[in-house]
Amino acid sequence: MKDYVEKLLSGDRRSAARLITLIENDAPEKQALLHRLYPHTGRAHVVGVTGSPGAGKSSLVDALTGQIRNEGLKVGIIAVDPTSPFSGGALLGDRIRMQEHTTDRGVFIRSMGTRGCLGGLAQATRDAVKVLDAYGCDVILVETVGVGQSELDIMHHADTTLVVLNPGAGDHIQTIKAGIMEIADIFVINKADLDGVEKLVRDIRAMLDSSPRAGDWRPPVLTTSTLDGRGIPELWATIKTHREKIFNNGTRSAVKRKRIQRELTEILQRRINRLITQGLDAGGRFEPVLEEILARRMDPYRAADEIIKQSWKGELSDE
Amino acid sequence: MKDYVEKLLSGDRRSAARLITLIENDAPEKQALLHRLYPHTGRAHVVGVTGSPGAGKSSLVDALTGQIRNEGLKVGIIAVDPTSPFSGGALLGDRIRMQEHTTDRGVFIRSMGTRGCLGGLAQATRDAVKVLDAYGCDVILVETVGVGQSELDIMHHADTTLVVLNPGAGDHIQTIKAGIMEIADIFVINKADLDGVEKLVRDIRAMLDSSPRAGDWRPPVLTTSTLDGRGIPELWATIKTHREKIFNNGTRSAVKRKRIQRELTEILQRRINRLITQGLDAGGRFEPVLEEILARRMDPYRAADEIIKQSWKGELSDE
Repeated sequence: MKDYVEKLLSGDRRSAARLITLIENDAPEKQALLHRLYPHTGRAHVVGVTGSPGAGKSSLVDALTGQIRNEGLKVGIIAVDPTSPFSGGALLGDRIRMQEHTTDRGVFIRSMGTRGCLGGLAQATRDAVKVLDAYGCDVILVETVGVGQSELDIMHHADTTLVVLNPGAGDHIQTIKAGIMEIADIFVINKADLDGVEKLVRDIRAMLDSSPRAGDWRPPVLTTSTLDGRGIPELWATIKTHREKIFNNGTRSAVKRKRIQRELTEILQRRINRLITQGLDAGGRFEPVLEEILARRMDPYRAADEIIKQSWKGELSDE
Repeated sequence: MKDYVEKLLSGDRRSAARLITLIENDAPEKQALLHRLYPHTGRAHVVGVTGSPGAGKSSLVDALTGQIRNEGLKVGIIAVDPTSPFSGGALLGDRIRMQEHTTDRGVFIRSMGTRGCLGGLAQATRDAVKVLDAYGCDVILVETVGVGQSELDIMHHADTTLVVLNPGAGDHIQTIKAGIMEIADIFVINKADLDGVEKLVRDIRAMLDSSPRAGDWRPPVLTTSTLDGRGIPELWATIKTHREKIFNNGTRSAVKRKRIQRELTEILQRRINRLITQGLDAGGRFEPVLEEILARRMDPYRAADEIIKQSWKGELSDE
């Protein structure tokens, strides 16, 4: 195992792929590996790309990758599909980007599905980001297929989140999920050659006016076309501006803190939930309490109080 | 507060309604009230009614209610809509059943939406069932609008679960959610006057043949029509047969045990999750660990190990 991490840190591409597979499979050595990786993470700029299906996210990610590569930066792409069990290279087989970037050693592409992700796809994605971060990627683009809850969970861990919309696909402000609008750092109206772009830009701006955000970053609304590359340099410039902004005004440390808090909360919840389940299974330490409830000598809420008193050290102020 | 429970136990209808509202609002006195109710529960036969939207579940529940009332039994109806924030009487305003059964003192009707159900709609529904059980309902019909995950969670707490399908609404075996087929104790093909009934019956039977269940109850497939009441007496008879069966062969105590285990697990998870969240909030006892992660001196998995060691009494065998 030692080899994978060492090789990764020296820039070995195959080790990056192997480590992500171990993470996906929730392999026993996962934690030890991540423990060793962790000090080498925190450098990459994580850019989330979400939006309705068909909005052209993949083409946009491809175009953006080309733009970033012009500066000689190393790019990681993680394409996450919560609706698919497949991962690895399967999903990406048909994709245009494969033709353009697979031979480029400065681009690492990986797709992730739900297969084996017992700890949850959001957690597996976070861990894959750590691998690519330690691998030396300067920018990691995390792309999702749609805008469901899993996608939102994943986007909560990006430094800069792009929400990609397009005028052709019925992306009216009214139909866009509330949660999505709130996480956008940059709105990208892709397929800017279609009708209705100006109305969509106006609608998004009006929405931003009506519900201003905390902080001094007002999400800009950019238009792009992946057909002729229009708007792509401006998009990359804006992503960099956003990064500088959050670095300089201290927002980033607050954001990072919140993000780590969220990740730690989720890991803790999964572990404690497992301990609870074990305790309540046949032969478990909480089984006698179950008997009391069955005999209606105790109700489930009282029983929960009892178990928590027995098992949790520290204040229970809110009970 | 004492009055509500006492009045409820003596059959006061308004107290039943009030208590369910307190549960929905997660009122501070909720637990104390349920604690007092609990010894008076466990008598009612809880019948879950689920199936695709438009399958005619409400009309079926109405027809079934009429049938059960013929025997002089007291009926509780809880209509659960996980997609609606509304509860109380709002949703039921238009419904046929209101005209037929609202003046009948032997029928208690209540709808529940997601409003205020912080503890989760499934838990609120379970608690509402306890209230109607203590109120003296012999049969409690719990009806859901659709077949999503929330509906499945709710159905896991019924003694007998009806899955209502109809031949007209594209209810082909292939399109029916796997989870739904597994929880069905009785299949009801409603709107039996439409074409395609026999094919649907055959398909369900074939499916049951190909994946036989544990235990000796093979879910029967019944046909009903709420237009002329066809099949309703047979449905009620089959529900009673299922009840006797599970009472007699000991399945019921195993089922009850599993159900209570599930309820207790959910209550415990919510509480512990709250304790974790508090601990990680600003000024919380786990905050120093967050600082260690931010400084990359500790990774999130190691940090979780640390917190669990600090906070959880008892074996941690699986860590």
